[in-house]
Amino acid sequence: MAVRNVLIITGGSVDIEWAKGWLERQKRAGITYDYCIAADSGLVSADKIGVTVDYMLGDYDSVDEDVLAKYQGNVPGDRYPAEKDYTDTELAIKTALDKIKAGNGRNNPEDPGEQSAALHASVTVIGATGTRLDHTLANIGLLEQIEREGVDGYIVDAHNMIRMLIMPGKDMVKISSRGQFGGYVSCIALTPVVHGLTMKGFKYPLDNHDLLQGVSLCVSNEITDEEGEISLKEGKMLVLETQD
Amino acid sequence: MAVRNVLIITGGSVDIEWAKGWLERQKRAGITYDYCIAADSGLVSADKIGVTVDYMLGDYDSVDEDVLAKYQGNVPGDRYPAEKDYTDTELAIKTALDKIKAGNGRNNPEDPGEQSAALHASVTVIGATGTRLDHTLANIGLLEQIEREGVDGYIVDAHNMIRMLIMPGKDMVKISSRGQFGGYVSCIALTPVVHGLTMKGFKYPLDNHDLLQGVSLCVSNEITDEEGEISLKEGKMLVLETQD
Repeated sequence: MAVRNVLIITGGSVDIEWAKGWLERQKRAGITYDYCIAADSGLVSADKIGVTVDYMLGDYDSVDEDVLAKYQGNVPGDRYPAEKDYTDTELAIKTALDKIKAGNGRNNPEDPGEQSAALHASVTVIGATGTRLDHTLANIGLLEQIEREGVDGYIVDAHNMIRMLIMPGKDMVKISSRGQFGGYVSCIALTPVVHGLTMKGFKYPLDNHDLLQGVSLCVSNEITDEEGEISLKEGKMLVLETQD
Repeated sequence: MAVRNVLIITGGSVDIEWAKGWLERQKRAGITYDYCIAADSGLVSADKIGVTVDYMLGDYDSVDEDVLAKYQGNVPGDRYPAEKDYTDTELAIKTALDKIKAGNGRNNPEDPGEQSAALHASVTVIGATGTRLDHTLANIGLLEQIEREGVDGYIVDAHNMIRMLIMPGKDMVKISSRGQFGGYVSCIALTPVVHGLTMKGFKYPLDNHDLLQGVSLCVSNEITDEEGEISLKEGKMLVLETQD
């Protein structure tokens, strides 16, 4: 089966009960994951959530021996040294993108029949956030590698759903007011200027606005129409759906 | 007295016991704050910590009535509407910088005698982080406004101390291994490329490296010499000292 939607569970904080409920709600909304990667101590979270792990990687230094014994040998994977140039999350994302490229026609010249927008691929990461803000920020930055491949990238925790908008690249995010993750939508510039930011269907709409990095103008907006639409002309930006 | 070191307590999560201990440790290390601004529900945290509030601002919609009554009328401040173009944290930072500019000779042409590096000013924000990552990211972005004024900006919580390095601007951060906040030092690029990143005195040193935004190379480095030295030639970057 072609791999289209990959779930990565990595080693940050995971609210297990939230994760169980969220995956259940996703399923009811028709969103399922056909490949799951556990990165390092994300394996322990994956085990607690009860999700099927298809691939595992990490140095496992801080992973419970019993959990490790349960999976190692039964699930394909790689053991990396603790000291390496990439974090486990970055290695998991690279693995996910390789899987999607190999199995999904969009980037597979031998399978042009699948090159359709309907076969949109995604990588969703949970456990990417936590008290260590260096890890959180690095993980958020990794969304760029996903988006650059034309794949939708999401970082999700109990309070936030984070995406990246890049132009040139993906130029629009649409959020239905019924399906949105939380009550608020915020935009954070990742380039010194985000040119031509337009937000339609919001309480505070914007039309072709130049958003500067380091100002707090676009925090806590709310969708007032059936759908909120966010687009930009040039730059790189995070879109966060959040709830208190 | 000239205002040089401003403490802002804003409305995110504050671990009160940590904050008390940290302010005590700062004091023992000779670092005191001569002006304290409470932003919105940061007033409640300030009250619990027991710090003297010199200025307060916010819409106070979610602030306990008793706490508000204790301070309002006794402490100068501003009441802003909930719907405004700036967050309370941004307004607090603008107030802090105005105070420093008015009272500190570095930006005061009428007081050139104080224009000395020895009179270095700083703005430190606690309560800037929490579960809402849009708020956390916007607050981290605000460090730019502080650094652009030639003032040292810090965001601190129980696990992280965050600074921003900008070139042209402040070109170096030095961290003594004895005085460092935690065991790890991480760098996160805020421009597509950070040119000429040099890290001396670290386990993984770098010499004139071009750090790309969206890769996790510079996470969790450790200081091995007496002092770690981080400098860059062009770009904008966060330096995080973190502890588990």
